[in-house]
Formats: sequence, C-alpha cells, structure tokens
Amino acid sequence: MTHSDMIEFKTKGDGDIVDLTDKVRSAVEKSGISSGIVSVCGIGSTVAVTTIEYEPGLQKDVPALMEKLIPSNVTYQHDATWGDGNGYAHLRSALVGTTFTTAVESKAPVLGTWQQIVFLDFDNRSRQRRVFVQVIGE
Amino acid sequence: MTHSDMIEFKTKGDGDIVDLTDKVRSAVEKSGISSGIVSVCGIGSTVAVTTIEYEPGLQKDVPALMEKLIPSNVTYQHDATWGDGNGYAHLRSALVGTTFTTAVESKAPVLGTWQQIVFLDFDNRSRQRRVFVQVIGE
Amino acid sequence: MTHSDMIEFKTKGDGDIVDLTDKVRSAVEKSGISSGIVSVCGIGSTVAVTTIEYEPGLQKDVPALMEKLIPSNVTYQHDATWGDGNGYAHLRSALVGTTFTTAVESKAPVLGTWQQIVFLDFDNRSRQRRVFVQVIGE
Repeated sequence: MTHSDMIEFKTKGDGDIVDLTDKVRSAVEKSGISSGIVSVCGIGSTVAVTTIEYEPGLQKDVPALMEKLIPSNVTYQHDATWGDGNGYAHLRSALVGTTFTTAVESKAPVLGTWQQIVFLDFDNRSRQRRVFVQVIGE
Repeated sequence: MTHSDMIEFKTKGDGDIVDLTDKVRSAVEKSGISSGIVSVCGIGSTVAVTTIEYEPGLQKDVPALMEKLIPSNVTYQHDATWGDGNGYAHLRSALVGTTFTTAVESKAPVLGTWQQIVFLDFDNRSRQRRVFVQVIGE
Repeated sequence: MTHSDMIEFKTKGDGDIVDLTDKVRSAVEKSGISSGIVSVCGIGSTVAVTTIEYEPGLQKDVPALMEKLIPSNVTYQHDATWGDGNGYAHLRSALVGTTFTTAVESKAPVLGTWQQIVFLDFDNRSRQRRVFVQVIGE
C-alpha cells in the first residue's frame, strides 16, 4: 500500500529552515499505514532534508556551520556556468542530501523526542518549494 | 510485507562507533523478506547511522574528522538554549544523517564486502541508544 | 511489488562523477511500478551516491570541496592498517553516504528538473563499480 502527499511552501532562502515534522506526521496518519517506511523528498538541487532539534540556537548554528564549511563569498566553477552565484548552495545540498527516509511504526514516523524533520533552503533568494512525501507499508 | 526490530545498546558517547551490521543482517533474515528495502533508523538528534569499513584506523579517523569539521571546544548557539554543551553533537548528526537505507536482495542487505553499517554517538556522555530497523518487501 | 537492477560501470577514481539518472529512470520504468520508493545503492566503502545539477562547473566544484574538507595529502590512521593510502576516500564516503532514496510517482523517480542522481568514486584508482537499484511499490 502506498500514499503520497505534496507539501508546498515559500522559503526565504539563505539557509532558511522549515520544520516539516507535523506535515509528515499528518501524511502518515492519512495514509492509514501502520508499519512501513516514509521518504521525505526535497525537490531541487539547492535544498536539503535532514533532522535537527528545531530550537532557536541550532536554527542559527546550522547556517553558520554551512557558511564555515562551504562559504558563500567564494566563486565556484558552477557560477561560471550559469552566473547565478549560488554554487555554494548546490554544494551544501549535495553534501547534506535532499531526502530523509525513516520507518513508520504505530502510524507515525520513527523519530526521537527532540528530533524534527527539517527542510533547508540554501539558495540565495526566496523560492516556492515542494517536498514529496511517500509512505509505503501495510 | 513488513518486519521491524528494535536494537538497544549502551554507548560511551564522544564519537563512539558501534557496528550494527550483524544485527541488521539478522533482522533481515528473521523477516523472511528476500527482496525489498531495509531502513536502519537511529533515534535521537545527536547520533548518526552511515557505513564505513569497520577497522581500527577508521574508528579513529572518523571522530578526528568530525572534530576537525565541527569542533567540540567551540560554543554554539544551541548551548545557550540548554546549557548541555553538546551543540557540536547536534550539528554532526544533522550533517551525517541519522538513517541509512539500502536494498535487500537474497534475504540480505546490499553492502560491499568491506562496508559495515555503523552507529555514531556524538553526544558528550554515555547514552542508552535505540535503532529501529524496518524491512519491507516480499 | 519489487523490481531490482544492477548497474555496472568503470570509473576513473579520484573523484570521478557518473550520472546515473537515465539508468535509474529506466529501472523504474521497467519495474511497472507507478507509485513507491526507489533506493539507489552504491556498493563499497569509498563511494557515494547523492544528487547534483550535473553540469561541468559542479563536476569540478564537488571534488574540490571534498579535497578541502578531507584532504588526500594527509596520512590517516586507516592508511596504517592497509597501506593503500585511500583513508580520505573512506572518510568522504562515510560523510556523503553511499545510498540515495527517493519517491516514485507516475512511473518516475521524484527529482527536480536540474537534479541528477550521481555516483562519486573517491578511491585513488580506476575501479569496476556496481550500483544496486531497488524499486518497491504498486
């Protein structure tokens, strides 16, 4: 049995972090699936989906870490291809990964108490974003 | 068809690495599923699940890499929120990712010969940990 | 319902990037599955599977980023174990991750327009590589 949902929202770009947990929980509940797997699939090449404790401190620490590991004020070869100046956003996306998959048990995604599923928009501008949620199981 | 197992163990924290491969293999065998997908889901926001060749050298290299990329002796905004001093552990978890998903073929997880599924505990103290293993297929 | 395919190819090593998107699309089409999940599983401990916009600039930026984060001209403890000098390749693999999982919708993997599924070979020599593609759904 499968069930899918599309989550749509607007981001501010520049490392904006959106908590998807409630919408993923809701998609799993609607699916009627009690045991299985859920894949949370960010669509695009300048985004990521991962988990963090969604609290104000880490909401600043995560973008700061990305800026340290993959600075935005450096010219990348990607920028020579398109001239859109977001090479760093592409690299952050490739490093963190665009999808998050976890188990479904008792009609809920398996997560820790302080573990939220988050969408990261690394692009250098506001974007309309879509995340495809696929639930599969019985 | 789905089958799930909970793996429970104690870690030492501070980058402790636990080889989960045998327990995941065993969960897949018990499932009776010969073809499908297995998700190995670390529970918590200061942990990771990935694959390495589980040998003594890399067991030192992986924590050393984490210390270089995301030092533990720096104050993060997260630490201001809770005062537990483990902001670096949260960031490492978000970067590496808490779950690992691979195919199941011939009643076994698809892995290379020198590729083991490992749990990383980045927290700054010993913890009781749980990993949820979900097998789905036919 | 499940369907699996093995993709086999030769790489040049040293950060070589192979675009797997067409072969993954083809595996999904052959499966007859219209809604589900696809796991693209790189086999080995010196490889990664992730997504990037597969264009010439990023094909240089990704290896350059890896070289910056995890330099190849440093001696790692792993090298003391085996003497094969590819400790950096193992660490890059553990950080990026060897598998990529996304949803299947309308008989195709869910991806952005500029988002390709790529295989990264971090090893220090040419290798024969295998990627196992598992499709599951209905």
